[in-house]
Amino acid sequence: TLRADMAELYPADISSILYELEPDRAHYLLNLLDQQVGADILANLDPAVRLDLLETFSSAELAPLINEMDSDDAVDILNEQPIRIREEVIALLEDREQARFILDLLHYDEDVAGGLMQKELVKINVNLTVNACIEEIRDQTEDVEKVYSVYVVDDADVLLGLVSLKRIVLARRNAKIADIYTRDILFVETYRPVEEVAEIMQRYDLDAIPVVNVQGRLLGQITIDDVVDVITEQADEDIQAISGLSGEVEEDDNIWARSRVQLPWLVAGAVGSLLAATVINGFQSQLSKIAALAAFIPIIGSTGGNVGIQTASLIVQSLADTSGLSTTLSQRLLRAFLVAIINGLVVGLMAGTYTFLIGEPRLFWVVGLSLLAVVMLASFMGTITPLLLNRIGINPAVASGPFITTANDLIGIGVYFTIAELLLAEV
Amino acid sequence: TLRADMAELYPADISSILYELEPDRAHYLLNLLDQQVGADILANLDPAVRLDLLETFSSAELAPLINEMDSDDAVDILNEQPIRIREEVIALLEDREQARFILDLLHYDEDVAGGLMQKELVKINVNLTVNACIEEIRDQTEDVEKVYSVYVVDDADVLLGLVSLKRIVLARRNAKIADIYTRDILFVETYRPVEEVAEIMQRYDLDAIPVVNVQGRLLGQITIDDVVDVITEQADEDIQAISGLSGEVEEDDNIWARSRVQLPWLVAGAVGSLLAATVINGFQSQLSKIAALAAFIPIIGSTGGNVGIQTASLIVQSLADTSGLSTTLSQRLLRAFLVAIINGLVVGLMAGTYTFLIGEPRLFWVVGLSLLAVVMLASFMGTITPLLLNRIGINPAVASGPFITTANDLIGIGVYFTIAELLLAEV
Ligand SMILES: [Mg+2]
Ligand SMILES: [Mg+2]
Ligand SMILES: [Mg+2]
Ligand SMILES: [Mg+2]
Ligand SMILES: [Mg+2]
Ligand SMILES: [Mg+2]
Ligand SMILES: [Mg+2]
Ligand SMILES: [Mg+2]
Ligand SMILES: [Mg+2]
Ligand SMILES: [Mg+2]
Ligand SMILES: [Mg+2]
Ligand SMILES: [Mg+2]
Ligand SMILES: [Mg+2]
Repeated sequence: TLRADMAELYPADISSILYELEPDRAHYLLNLLDQQVGADILANLDPAVRLDLLETFSSAELAPLINEMDSDDAVDILNEQPIRIREEVIALLEDREQARFILDLLHYDEDVAGGLMQKELVKINVNLTVNACIEEIRDQTEDVEKVYSVYVVDDADVLLGLVSLKRIVLARRNAKIADIYTRDILFVETYRPVEEVAEIMQRYDLDAIPVVNVQGRLLGQITIDDVVDVITEQADEDIQAISGLSGEVEEDDNIWARSRVQLPWLVAGAVGSLLAATVINGFQSQLSKIAALAAFIPIIGSTGGNVGIQTASLIVQSLADTSGLSTTLSQRLLRAFLVAIINGLVVGLMAGTYTFLIGEPRLFWVVGLSLLAVVMLASFMGTITPLLLNRIGINPAVASGPFITTANDLIGIGVYFTIAELLLAEV
Repeated sequence: TLRADMAELYPADISSILYELEPDRAHYLLNLLDQQVGADILANLDPAVRLDLLETFSSAELAPLINEMDSDDAVDILNEQPIRIREEVIALLEDREQARFILDLLHYDEDVAGGLMQKELVKINVNLTVNACIEEIRDQTEDVEKVYSVYVVDDADVLLGLVSLKRIVLARRNAKIADIYTRDILFVETYRPVEEVAEIMQRYDLDAIPVVNVQGRLLGQITIDDVVDVITEQADEDIQAISGLSGEVEEDDNIWARSRVQLPWLVAGAVGSLLAATVINGFQSQLSKIAALAAFIPIIGSTGGNVGIQTASLIVQSLADTSGLSTTLSQRLLRAFLVAIINGLVVGLMAGTYTFLIGEPRLFWVVGLSLLAVVMLASFMGTITPLLLNRIGINPAVASGPFITTANDLIGIGVYFTIAELLLAEV
């Protein structure tokens, strides 16, 4: 039977199958399955697909699935729903602890630790014994699928440390938790940005990290699987920004969705290039006298764009890497300046040599100096733009995209024709 | 004392401190520390820094540190060393099991599962009891820092399944492993590409995955912390490729290193643009008659580049995402073609309108049609290039970089002047 076939699959794989079905077929399939499996599948679905699917569900149908979910996933799904449905579902939850968990989590932003944590965890009072601890695990883990370690708290629920399961397995049954637990463990406060949580868990190779409030009370834990998802989402966002896609879209989305995501930067780039066109038009008389001037417009534009993107990416990368010491702005600019001189000389000489090849040696200095200037300006822009964007809270990777290409194109054309006018006085 | 201060820090933090020291100062500091801590620090260091540091170490000094390391990290470090030092260190290892582990791991490529796995794990024969299992854990975990679960094997060491530590804690001491273990678990073979391992662990939210040989025998395990590092390295490589950096470099590396990484693509881009210059030079007579033709060179070049990068990034993203069904080449091209018509019409109309604004209405069709053609060609190139690169085993993200910008710039210029020649017959 279909039901038996499905039972052989992992929830993540059934989620993939659902992508190929119409919402009401998917709804029918989900109803065939065990509720725990259904909950896992729903938690795994792409949010856009899930939104379509859940439109075919009543609150009474959704509640039992939310009931079975980890609280972090339950909150993510309810946050996607209209407030009326959210409240109906919470009211209908059979597991009242789950309802309380969800109400606790609902008010955290999705970009801080509180928005990533789950309430499910195993904790033990520091005054108990290993034996009591094993009983706690038995009680508490009904709800906790995967136990990373047991958190140790005092009477006020303040986090003191943890005991690994390995230690519990190996300890004598009557040993006191106070004697065997690990103090000074890493934790995060609810308000920490998710990027910092990811950084910490990656740096210290953690599988889970406890989350506390300002008084140090244990509120929940963040598990590595959710942090892995954060890391890949951030990488995707960076690539999107660099590529000039103004939002998330997949290759197989419909053509209007793709166009909507591609057009904003194409239009912005076109506006920039038409400004460049206006500049070039201002030099019509020079162009009609030395038509070869036009030949170097592409190298000026593309070199500026390439240098700008390279430099901006290096800065974005250094902003993301918090393991080293911080660099001052003047150090950054000095280094970018020195690299630009080397690169500018190489590219400038190449293009300068080419002026001889095409029999326009009078353009040697115009083209060579312009390229040197363009590389230096693009390095400056590429250094300063991501730092500014980062300061005002915009993803600095945006600075590596069409924005910097267009800006450098425009600046480069201006520089080139100005230098041409200065050096070719006879024109 | 310095030693006591250091003891308060996590190894990952001491690694950061070492980055600021000269190799022989770092060597001195490392010698002050406990050998296990020293081993963890060394495993954490950036490979380039580590290489410099280890030049100050004799094989006899390195061996005790390698002795304490997880086998996966030990092999990574030895693989960076010259073969003579590698063999000396292995010969000097006090822990002969560690030597055997390292010899087992040395022959795997770093981009397959075998190159990522550690030999340290806890396994138990399926015929034993929970009690025996706990004794096994006691014996085996001396060497295994973090126990994820206990793998269950038959007499021939073939992987049968696993028992979670939670289950062991909760089981009766005389229960049989055969009765409580989980069958049908996920595993990978040694030859699986690391990207696939990462994909599987992320998809199924695993903390560790066992690695087997073709006969199904358990050889090692891969832990999520190392997979997280693989995921971020791959994201960094993609961004590097898109940004036109021909290798890994950090913003604060010396200026020669930066220039070496930036120049190859700048020079390649310059060559492409000089080819475009040659094309433009071929149309000198048209340009001297209609100087305004030059004004549209930037919009032709940058629109082609932007569309190419957007399209290539969508393809790269869809290649990385294996969760959906696969798309055929003709479906991909058709969709890219339809999106290109919409985008090309919008940008073409913008630029066409601009020809009226600057009083050159005779260029309306030349510019508008050229942009439509450029957007369509760039979409085609952006679709086909990453697919081809992927096919021949090159990171397809390279196709989103300066390569595609330059190619589109060149093609665009050719199309533009050809259309100009055809439509402006009087020129
Ligand atoms: Mg879960
Ligand atoms: Mg629950
Ligand atoms: Mg959440
Ligand atoms: Mg790590
Ligand atoms: Mg999750
Ligand atoms: Mg979770
Ligand atoms: Mg380790
Ligand atoms: Mg060992
Ligand atoms: Mg390795
Ligand atoms: Mg996952
Ligand atoms: Mg590691
Ligand atoms: Mg490891
Ligand atoms: Mg990625």
